[in-house]
Amino acid sequence: MRNSDDDPPIITLSAGPVDAYPVVLRALSRPVTYDFDPSFQQFYESTVLKTAESLRTGLPPVILQGEPVLALEAAAAALIGADDVVLNLASGEYGKGFGFWAARHCRELLEIEVSYDDAIDPEAVSEMLEARPDIRVLSVCHHDTPSGTLNPVREIGALCRDRDVLTIVDAVSSFGGMDIHPEDVNADIFVTSPSKCLGGSTGLSIVHVSERAWAKIDANPAAPTASVLSLKDWRDAWRSDVLFPFTPSVCEVHALDAAVQNYLDEGPESVWARHALTARACRAGVRALGLDLWPAREAICSDTATTVRVPGGLEDEAIRREARGRYGVVFSAGRGSLMGRLVRIGHMGPVARPIYAVVAVSALGGAIAALGGKTDVGAGVEAALAVIDGAG
Amino acid sequence: MRNSDDDPPIITLSAGPVDAYPVVLRALSRPVTYDFDPSFQQFYESTVLKTAESLRTGLPPVILQGEPVLALEAAAAALIGADDVVLNLASGEYGKGFGFWAARHCRELLEIEVSYDDAIDPEAVSEMLEARPDIRVLSVCHHDTPSGTLNPVREIGALCRDRDVLTIVDAVSSFGGMDIHPEDVNADIFVTSPSKCLGGSTGLSIVHVSERAWAKIDANPAAPTASVLSLKDWRDAWRSDVLFPFTPSVCEVHALDAAVQNYLDEGPESVWARHALTARACRAGVRALGLDLWPAREAICSDTATTVRVPGGLEDEAIRREARGRYGVVFSAGRGSLMGRLVRIGHMGPVARPIYAVVAVSALGGAIAALGGKTDVGAGVEAALAVIDGAG
Amino acid sequence: MRNSDDDPPIITLSAGPVDAYPVVLRALSRPVTYDFDPSFQQFYESTVLKTAESLRTGLPPVILQGEPVLALEAAAAALIGADDVVLNLASGEYGKGFGFWAARHCRELLEIEVSYDDAIDPEAVSEMLEARPDIRVLSVCHHDTPSGTLNPVREIGALCRDRDVLTIVDAVSSFGGMDIHPEDVNADIFVTSPSKCLGGSTGLSIVHVSERAWAKIDANPAAPTASVLSLKDWRDAWRSDVLFPFTPSVCEVHALDAAVQNYLDEGPESVWARHALTARACRAGVRALGLDLWPAREAICSDTATTVRVPGGLEDEAIRREARGRYGVVFSAGRGSLMGRLVRIGHMGPVARPIYAVVAVSALGGAIAALGGKTDVGAGVEAALAVIDGAG
Amino acid sequence: MRNSDDDPPIITLSAGPVDAYPVVLRALSRPVTYDFDPSFQQFYESTVLKTAESLRTGLPPVILQGEPVLALEAAAAALIGADDVVLNLASGEYGKGFGFWAARHCRELLEIEVSYDDAIDPEAVSEMLEARPDIRVLSVCHHDTPSGTLNPVREIGALCRDRDVLTIVDAVSSFGGMDIHPEDVNADIFVTSPSKCLGGSTGLSIVHVSERAWAKIDANPAAPTASVLSLKDWRDAWRSDVLFPFTPSVCEVHALDAAVQNYLDEGPESVWARHALTARACRAGVRALGLDLWPAREAICSDTATTVRVPGGLEDEAIRREARGRYGVVFSAGRGSLMGRLVRIGHMGPVARPIYAVVAVSALGGAIAALGGKTDVGAGVEAALAVIDGAG
Repeated sequence: MRNSDDDPPIITLSAGPVDAYPVVLRALSRPVTYDFDPSFQQFYESTVLKTAESLRTGLPPVILQGEPVLALEAAAAALIGADDVVLNLASGEYGKGFGFWAARHCRELLEIEVSYDDAIDPEAVSEMLEARPDIRVLSVCHHDTPSGTLNPVREIGALCRDRDVLTIVDAVSSFGGMDIHPEDVNADIFVTSPSKCLGGSTGLSIVHVSERAWAKIDANPAAPTASVLSLKDWRDAWRSDVLFPFTPSVCEVHALDAAVQNYLDEGPESVWARHALTARACRAGVRALGLDLWPAREAICSDTATTVRVPGGLEDEAIRREARGRYGVVFSAGRGSLMGRLVRIGHMGPVARPIYAVVAVSALGGAIAALGGKTDVGAGVEAALAVIDGAG
Repeated sequence: MRNSDDDPPIITLSAGPVDAYPVVLRALSRPVTYDFDPSFQQFYESTVLKTAESLRTGLPPVILQGEPVLALEAAAAALIGADDVVLNLASGEYGKGFGFWAARHCRELLEIEVSYDDAIDPEAVSEMLEARPDIRVLSVCHHDTPSGTLNPVREIGALCRDRDVLTIVDAVSSFGGMDIHPEDVNADIFVTSPSKCLGGSTGLSIVHVSERAWAKIDANPAAPTASVLSLKDWRDAWRSDVLFPFTPSVCEVHALDAAVQNYLDEGPESVWARHALTARACRAGVRALGLDLWPAREAICSDTATTVRVPGGLEDEAIRREARGRYGVVFSAGRGSLMGRLVRIGHMGPVARPIYAVVAVSALGGAIAALGGKTDVGAGVEAALAVIDGAG
Repeated sequence: MRNSDDDPPIITLSAGPVDAYPVVLRALSRPVTYDFDPSFQQFYESTVLKTAESLRTGLPPVILQGEPVLALEAAAAALIGADDVVLNLASGEYGKGFGFWAARHCRELLEIEVSYDDAIDPEAVSEMLEARPDIRVLSVCHHDTPSGTLNPVREIGALCRDRDVLTIVDAVSSFGGMDIHPEDVNADIFVTSPSKCLGGSTGLSIVHVSERAWAKIDANPAAPTASVLSLKDWRDAWRSDVLFPFTPSVCEVHALDAAVQNYLDEGPESVWARHALTARACRAGVRALGLDLWPAREAICSDTATTVRVPGGLEDEAIRREARGRYGVVFSAGRGSLMGRLVRIGHMGPVARPIYAVVAVSALGGAIAALGGKTDVGAGVEAALAVIDGAG
Repeated sequence: MRNSDDDPPIITLSAGPVDAYPVVLRALSRPVTYDFDPSFQQFYESTVLKTAESLRTGLPPVILQGEPVLALEAAAAALIGADDVVLNLASGEYGKGFGFWAARHCRELLEIEVSYDDAIDPEAVSEMLEARPDIRVLSVCHHDTPSGTLNPVREIGALCRDRDVLTIVDAVSSFGGMDIHPEDVNADIFVTSPSKCLGGSTGLSIVHVSERAWAKIDANPAAPTASVLSLKDWRDAWRSDVLFPFTPSVCEVHALDAAVQNYLDEGPESVWARHALTARACRAGVRALGLDLWPAREAICSDTATTVRVPGGLEDEAIRREARGRYGVVFSAGRGSLMGRLVRIGHMGPVARPIYAVVAVSALGGAIAALGGKTDVGAGVEAALAVIDGAG
């Protein structure tokens, strides 16, 4: 009666990729058209402009033909010049990881690093910017997905604006599920993905580039061209009268269009609200199970993923195996240095619905109980339901 | 934050139609072919033979181009002659309803009717068959969906076989989710549906007709021909070298093929086991919520739907509205005389998975609590989980 | 290198079912919802009202849950009373066939029958109506698909309106491809299909019923109820606050919605224009091949199917086999008494595009040449292209 | 009546992306799973091994998460070391273009360049290899898509094998449509695409890497790692027990699996045969139209695209516009220096069917005639049909 490894999951509550909305899956099955056909070129333009609308900016974003890791690598390569001093903020694996790409291109890499269950303190950033007025670029991850923690990117962005520091903001797993947009946070490069909170497909990334970032990129002789890593190649590709530099992923563009349209149709505020409610219910349930959240404090917990400390005496892999084997519920593992220390429950896109907090708490509690762990599943579910019921 | 009536449900736990398996939804989007194209005629033959395999019979079933209500009406019209005495067994709305169709065609309609939370007693059938040796046809519903109760069709079938009584068995909402096949239960006409436990689409019905039923139909001058109600028209349509009498529903045939293949691939025994476990977990949870199951006793509860008595002081419609509004979970209402007296939780096809018992119990308990009803959701979920965990 | 019978066709140019539009295929893969869920009930209402819009009437049509043959059988059963005299117009297999259903219900069946390559003369209808003022119901097929011929239903409808005769119009394979709507032709019952010119799926039928037809049905004690053949059962089912009498074919409703929306979005006049142009190009091409059209004269040729007389010395089945084997192009066979005498080329829905006239002419010509027939394929294609090019 | 630029094409005969097979479009709409879920990891392994089977090699290929341009850039970066002398063979835009990537990494770039309507002469390669024994890497494009010409990669590969020169072969638009596999042509890196002859989706590339290529890459300190451009990162990702370095494009993997399975199921030899026949019919038709093929001679014409010289006095863009506007048929433009000089007709995947040669010839001829060009469409179609008919 167990779900075997060969069987598909019953319910995926990962931190991404998450299941796409049905409307996105249907869009993926649209006929494939020749990319230079005028109907596709118009479709592409319309998709990019719609994406700009979702980003609440008038600047058409660059769509790169690969997942956001491509976009982050490309952003570092384009924006960071050989003479630049870069301040990278590391409060988790992803923030830390960006530093490696930044280091390939800059003169000097500075870093503020905090414990991976904590968030960056804007005060520390302010001091560093004060101390090192030669910092040209700051990079920060909004939601460091492996930790489930949020950084105060609005405050950090404001500090940078005042000092002519360009910012690279990774909002891959928060945009579309929370109130975060490039211009609100003064992002010069803002990278996000259709496959997380937008419930889209995994093969593209969305890159907002500010005017001053484009100016710096234009001035950077090392900024890639004629490369899959090039932002410049794709800068004007959104225009229906401009040829694509390389072949766009036609099916993924169809999916992006559907994901963004779906987001706009539902209403961004409503989408954020259900992400937030699901996360709140999940956190309440996890605590009532008798477990500890990974983040140091509730205020820095993401609305799009809940991270749970692995209780003493148990192994994360066993917990995930039991949740999948018994209930068909899939959680995400930790990553890098956090592997084995936490379990991650995603609330993104179609599963950012309160009932899935109940599913998560039940499956997590049931798995822990099955492994002999101490937990109170009844209390967990009741706590989650109480949050949901309090909302309406 | 509530799911509005306009919004699609989050999780449908109805007693049918239920959501189709993803592989069925994909099959529905296959290109439509001309029905007389040889490739379609071969496909149709292969689909019917595969369906026969799932029914565990060597006789190709008739596929009627409409939902099972068409098949039941057609079965009555074909099998029941003007001189026939028919014994209809009524333990619920559907069993009772078949009597109306039977009455259109027969000389005399006899009926054994029991309370709609109970099942037919084979002893009573035996006595009636003894008392009225002129009974030619017996009709019985295996799972009377509006009640969530099962009738002992094996025993009843055996009684009929001994007496040369032909049987019409409605297995619409049990075949594919339980161990029930036409020849096991001595069914002369056995009607089922792709859209319940097989997780298929709603537009076809599957009708097994025994050799002796065909003989009786052939001898019945009133058996419909040149009609959508005709079993005879479609009798040989499964053969790739025979023309269709009317246009088959091409897309629905694609869906049927996928649903049956999926069932055979997963393994019928495994499919039944997960239906059974889900129902058991659900029943345990419902009881621990402090609610009463509708069926008079556990032994007659269906594995494919759990029916719950509406607790005193509450209205079924309000319960369903809260479950949908708060959690996006959809249950079925009662039907006919049972409307308002119970709530139905389906366990069919893709949601016949234990985790959905947890979802059902949480949403039902949460809805009742929200309406001020007395219930213990924590205990409900724990009881459901205990059943699941006991299974492995 | 031949396409075998097992292989799917490359291009289907049948007289129906035809391939659905991609948007329809995608709609078929929408999640299946419980039919009584409010979101589905609203969807159904919206679909029916949209269909009414496409029919250019304010009266919501009845959607029957089966292909149009069900609708025609149901129309006869509902509208024709035991005392009625019915005039059936037979200019082809389908018109003739309706008489058999009419005869089941009426007191007397009158018929005007013409050669199946010809059309009904309104003058003859006028004379018959004059001679037999007791005629209550007239039935006529607009496009008798097996013949590819059109009847003058506008003129016939006008004659009936003047005389209080109710009409049943079969527009199954013309509505959506030509300028034909129920109220234009004074149809009291108007039957059509989503699966022909609308490029939808095959499992539903659309039935417009006028107010006076409803009055007659209400007064007809034999009009079916509690039956798949009942128009009355489904009369109010379009209303989101009315329960469905039986389970609708959820996926087919999704498909209908998409097909009708697609038709309205493209613009009915544009859709008709491309059907007309494709047919004109095809007829020109067929004639230039040296073949004869089946209809007695161009004026009665349908815009939605072109029928071609089988040239002397050849067999229709061989022609279709060669067209399919060599080119993967599928044509329709004749039906009934016309079987073997003609080949039918459909121009419906997605293949009602001029280039498919070129495909048809090439494949038909190529097949005939391959069988040793005399034909001029080059001239055929050039003639088809000349018509297309003349259009813009 | 013209197809406007907003309307989707009716028939796409581009040189890629081409429309995907229906089975691929359906696979794209499979549910998205978490990439680290064991069911997906097993699926990925199975897909890669199936792809290896299609490549007729025992070495699992690397799947890169982007179109083949990524793969070619990545191949250059990995294989070509700073001390290497590279011989690039340029018989068209794509071959020439590879030289630019090669030049980024090598010590010296040698090139043999021929007119872009011609093919590389193995004799010239042999001489160059003789003259420059320090050549370490040779790069060649099998089918230079912008020209529609083939290079003799078998012969060239054999020359390299004898001399310990590593080869990079671009088979993007020929593999899957012709008899070309990495080990047959002694390719050390062999790049191809799911979106051309396999009729798949556009977002992945397939890279075969030989053992000796891996050895050279391992020894190359500049070979990218932790980069979207890294072959090394993905080398072992095919194993279900190895974690993905970055997120794979889940939907694209589903599509790749379906495309490769479809290719194996149909039978590679059959697939090649229909590509070849379509191309032969198309070439015969084009010539009979009175037009000139672009390639200098028939022997170097690709089976997967036919390139046609723009006739004097006409503009390619006008021809393509008329073909699309009048018939909805889309051809590809030229690229780079060939832009404006030729029109390209693709025969890839689902349109590699002889009837589409007829469509191509008709639409091309019709467009040229509409622009006042001299052409004989009837003769063109007859010539195409004659080739098809000669084949069976």
